[in-house]
Amino acid sequence: MRTAYIHGHFFTMDSEYRTMDRGMMVVERGAIVYIGDHAEELLAGADEIVDLAGKWVLPGLVNTHSHIVMTILRGVGDDMLLKPWLETRIWPMESRFTTEIAAASARLGILEMLKSGTTTFSDMFNPAGIDADAVMQAVAETGIRGAFSYTIFSMGTLREQQANLAGAERFARRYKTAADGRLTTMVAPHSPYACTPHALVESVRIAHENDLMLHIHVSETETEVSDIERRYGVRPVEHLRRLGLFGRPAVMAHGVVLNDEERQIMKRHDVRVAHNPISNLKLGSGIADVGRLLDAGIKVGIATDGVASNNNFDMFEEMRTAALLQKGTAKDAGRLPAPTVYAMATRMGAEAIGMSHTGSLERGKRADFITIDPYDKPHLQPVSRASSHLLYSVCGRDVCDVYIDGNVVVKNGQCLTMDEEKVMAEANRLLSRIGEPRHGAPAAGR
Amino acid sequence: MRTAYIHGHFFTMDSEYRTMDRGMMVVERGAIVYIGDHAEELLAGADEIVDLAGKWVLPGLVNTHSHIVMTILRGVGDDMLLKPWLETRIWPMESRFTTEIAAASARLGILEMLKSGTTTFSDMFNPAGIDADAVMQAVAETGIRGAFSYTIFSMGTLREQQANLAGAERFARRYKTAADGRLTTMVAPHSPYACTPHALVESVRIAHENDLMLHIHVSETETEVSDIERRYGVRPVEHLRRLGLFGRPAVMAHGVVLNDEERQIMKRHDVRVAHNPISNLKLGSGIADVGRLLDAGIKVGIATDGVASNNNFDMFEEMRTAALLQKGTAKDAGRLPAPTVYAMATRMGAEAIGMSHTGSLERGKRADFITIDPYDKPHLQPVSRASSHLLYSVCGRDVCDVYIDGNVVVKNGQCLTMDEEKVMAEANRLLSRIGEPRHGAPAAGR
Ligand SMILES: [Zn+2]
Ligand SMILES: [Zn+2]
Repeated sequence: MRTAYIHGHFFTMDSEYRTMDRGMMVVERGAIVYIGDHAEELLAGADEIVDLAGKWVLPGLVNTHSHIVMTILRGVGDDMLLKPWLETRIWPMESRFTTEIAAASARLGILEMLKSGTTTFSDMFNPAGIDADAVMQAVAETGIRGAFSYTIFSMGTLREQQANLAGAERFARRYKTAADGRLTTMVAPHSPYACTPHALVESVRIAHENDLMLHIHVSETETEVSDIERRYGVRPVEHLRRLGLFGRPAVMAHGVVLNDEERQIMKRHDVRVAHNPISNLKLGSGIADVGRLLDAGIKVGIATDGVASNNNFDMFEEMRTAALLQKGTAKDAGRLPAPTVYAMATRMGAEAIGMSHTGSLERGKRADFITIDPYDKPHLQPVSRASSHLLYSVCGRDVCDVYIDGNVVVKNGQCLTMDEEKVMAEANRLLSRIGEPRHGAPAAGR
Repeated sequence: MRTAYIHGHFFTMDSEYRTMDRGMMVVERGAIVYIGDHAEELLAGADEIVDLAGKWVLPGLVNTHSHIVMTILRGVGDDMLLKPWLETRIWPMESRFTTEIAAASARLGILEMLKSGTTTFSDMFNPAGIDADAVMQAVAETGIRGAFSYTIFSMGTLREQQANLAGAERFARRYKTAADGRLTTMVAPHSPYACTPHALVESVRIAHENDLMLHIHVSETETEVSDIERRYGVRPVEHLRRLGLFGRPAVMAHGVVLNDEERQIMKRHDVRVAHNPISNLKLGSGIADVGRLLDAGIKVGIATDGVASNNNFDMFEEMRTAALLQKGTAKDAGRLPAPTVYAMATRMGAEAIGMSHTGSLERGKRADFITIDPYDKPHLQPVSRASSHLLYSVCGRDVCDVYIDGNVVVKNGQCLTMDEEKVMAEANRLLSRIGEPRHGAPAAGR
């Protein structure tokens, strides 16, 4: 099966940021075999021709850090700091999760991701009390691409901690290559504060033995950094380095509180960062200095984190927020220009999570792409300034079609791999099971 | 004509932030005559009953500072600081504006505002070379509510400056009460840096003699503050106070660079602030300390500014950004909780621009309201956490119906007062007239 996509306005996001005004892309068995100017002679060999005239065509977005199993917790504990939010709201509710709730949450989260243009994501999920196989089955059916990490926590008895590590290892192996290669795994110790040195060292061993990446929350808040310093005498990055964590390629979620020395360590060990600007603001954690990370030569991807601290999976909003924050805090409007931010949400993000077979429209890459029709949207006029609008004015709801491995998963805004109505109804129905107090409006204040 | 809106989930945004789960609102001749719990006996007197079951019903949003005549400049000069952006890109292009371009821009901007839930706005427009009456005619036809300000600039010859002042005065009087009371005016000296003391004093006179508010850009950047200090020996707020500007109720757009003393002066004179978080970030101006402004008892509204520095009119995105920024910079997740931010974008914003007859759903107020249907939107699930989703997850594109003065202006996302296709095509057609160089993608960078 060979399909030619013609007449679209292509944004390749290759290393030269090439665009084609009325370009052409040919896809065969899920891979891009041609992308460039219109080439009439290539049409003869195509089984199918799709006319994308008037549409913007971009690589699918890459969300480098999420927690889709928590999607049902959207809106829980607004206006709270990270530590009390995790300890008094999120973790207690997660402890009441069942497999059914976890799978329903995953479906709802992925439905939102697909419809808003995300084709690849890297997720960390809390396996407590749920059957991870059932969740992975639900994920596989959606058609999305992603790397899944079974969270390693040092909680409970020693026996429970051993079971958690064994579960993580089993999971990492079983799904290392799954769903026709769309799904893979990482090894995910939660954080330096929620994992003992032993659990961190064991995580590295699992990653080494199975040739997997590491995925961990690091330096999200000042409190975390001072806690680790008090406990171990060094800051989190050095603590992790000493434990050998950076002997494997690792993605660090957050990296809000970092100094120059830590950035140098990270650069030296090719540690990548998943930047979660909205979650970091919402939980009062602060603003990661993305400009300095990029200056240091560190790969930075964009991410939403879970929707309980965001509260959505809209990667366009996340990109925009990332760009705006760096300009505003550096008082330099030229900081993080549109192409850089768009690369972070596509090619660079894919590289950061070790999935460089997606993230840009280039020959040999998987055909993961999205389309946007600007012509019926006042907020995208005048249409000629597309590259600006993609960063500063598009929102997730503007996405028209979404393709993964060359298969259409969203068509005209409707998801084809899931029964949307059923997924939403299910999430609402299951809500009562986790004992949520009815969410009243918080009080006004400053 | 008496219409009863029943079964909706009403967010009144009154001073007690009352909500009604399955409530009722009765509207007569454009005004709210009842809002509260369902009252079967009121249905008998209704000419029309509209069932809003399952929908969220909120006051229309109030955008306290915009420049709709510049809408065609969306995406011009991204990644530039305020001063060079104004001087090398915006003002030169504005100088080539014609009445036709200005009216087309206004229509496009208002189309976007209405569709994204804004029912009231306060706008400042550059009248150079355009027939303001034609623009006002275009604005009136859209059905929106707003206060329009004809910008006073101290540019050109003395004769030109006098003509500008005379034009502003004529305009302010002519449209003080227009379009069945939906449109009104303010007096708008552009800024302390673009107006001479004489122009500022004259502005105050015009405002006094016509009983109008003042609308002015103040303390947007550190450069502006130091320029004014060098020129006049005092900071902008004190400079304006000495010139008598605060003898009239005034709305100050921006207020990014303010100290405690200035906030005290503003509080004493009831100066209100239009907070433009996205524009301030995008132009590298900084982050206004909204928390401190509210602490000082100053009324703060939310605003988008023009779309050349935003680049859209989505007030939901603007609210979310306002809330997130205060939390992140204060490192306090409890700063600016949802109800406060929502009030800033509705009731408090309306009060800030002197239009307290709108901005909340209360008996006696104008029936300006919007509806959102959460049931077919994955990013608004679970639906029970509406008050959280309204701030953190809704985007302008989620708006379903929009009413102004009880008249439906947007129905199921389609604008009824304008020919959408024509408005968009017109803006694209006129673009070439202002001599824009084709907007290439800016280079990548950090
Ligand atoms: Zn996380
Ligand atoms: Zn302005």
